[in-house]
Amino acid sequence: MRVSVPLKDAYRLLNHGPTTLVSTCEPSGAKPNVMAAAWAMAIDFEPPKVAVVVAQGTYTRELLERNAELVLSLPTVAMIDDVYLVGTKSGREIDKWKVLSAEKATKVRPPLIGGCVGWLECVVIQEPSVREKYDLVIAEVVAAWADDAVYREREWRFEKDDPRRTIHHLARGTFFATGERVEAKKV
Amino acid sequence: MRVSVPLKDAYRLLNHGPTTLVSTCEPSGAKPNVMAAAWAMAIDFEPPKVAVVVAQGTYTRELLERNAELVLSLPTVAMIDDVYLVGTKSGREIDKWKVLSAEKATKVRPPLIGGCVGWLECVVIQEPSVREKYDLVIAEVVAAWADDAVYREREWRFEKDDPRRTIHHLARGTFFATGERVEAKKV
Repeated sequence: MRVSVPLKDAYRLLNHGPTTLVSTCEPSGAKPNVMAAAWAMAIDFEPPKVAVVVAQGTYTRELLERNAELVLSLPTVAMIDDVYLVGTKSGREIDKWKVLSAEKATKVRPPLIGGCVGWLECVVIQEPSVREKYDLVIAEVVAAWADDAVYREREWRFEKDDPRRTIHHLARGTFFATGERVEAKKV
Repeated sequence: MRVSVPLKDAYRLLNHGPTTLVSTCEPSGAKPNVMAAAWAMAIDFEPPKVAVVVAQGTYTRELLERNAELVLSLPTVAMIDDVYLVGTKSGREIDKWKVLSAEKATKVRPPLIGGCVGWLECVVIQEPSVREKYDLVIAEVVAAWADDAVYREREWRFEKDDPRRTIHHLARGTFFATGERVEAKKV
């Protein structure tokens, strides 16, 4: 079940460095698009902020320039074929909604992606200089959600071999699943 | 054995989102320091660039303001106690070189961290605006290295249960090991 994650914990969804899906749309909410992005990370706790690289020339970037909102969804091992497909083909070429499903977000117009296990609804902060120079988009998280099958008591709780584990892209369709939990000695 | 990674492949070391150690030093090379950073990612392929969050007030940030160089080292499961320690205590309070070892870099003055499996030697690109506003440091990778026990043929090759797997911080000393490799269908 999708449950709300307090904004102060939003960084916990992204902290382990999973690959993300970035969704965007027209200002009217029309023509939602989605691309895969391994280059996304938390950059602040509260209010939570993220940075994500969205290359110039992509349809996602074009939509972002018109509507300064995005959703980061966290896909799973079960979804890698679809993640790789939407990461390599443009929404100008294929209909990505043939393989992925869109669900309504609460605070922004771009959709959450169905089947994912974490979602961050974000409003872009206008930083045109780093966007032009580095394709770096900075955004504030305004709502966060997680699937309580794998996120409980403020932490990811992945079972061994669970197809709902998050994924980490290496290159060219090779991913790593998120592995076992290890605890450091408290200091 | 530590082997050179071509700069065009440097992003492959970081692409799966591992936690990093950031080392810095005085312009003379003196007083090297190291902190843990989960908020580090690749932002470009060639020339390779990275973005890393280094909070204002930290000793690492103070050194970076004086010497615009850093090394990102990728620690392992075997090192989590030390990673958590150097991520929670300041180099102003403790001598971090009692738990970690420094090895000479080739193109920059801050050291590589011994026992790690990947290293990115970086020169900071001056972007004072995002550094002030978001603690975001942008840097170009000028040399990259990996341990060929776990990185071969342009890819991480982690064996199951290998203590040399990279790690992904969730929060407060809880990490995930990098898990098994999964391959997407090629499109």
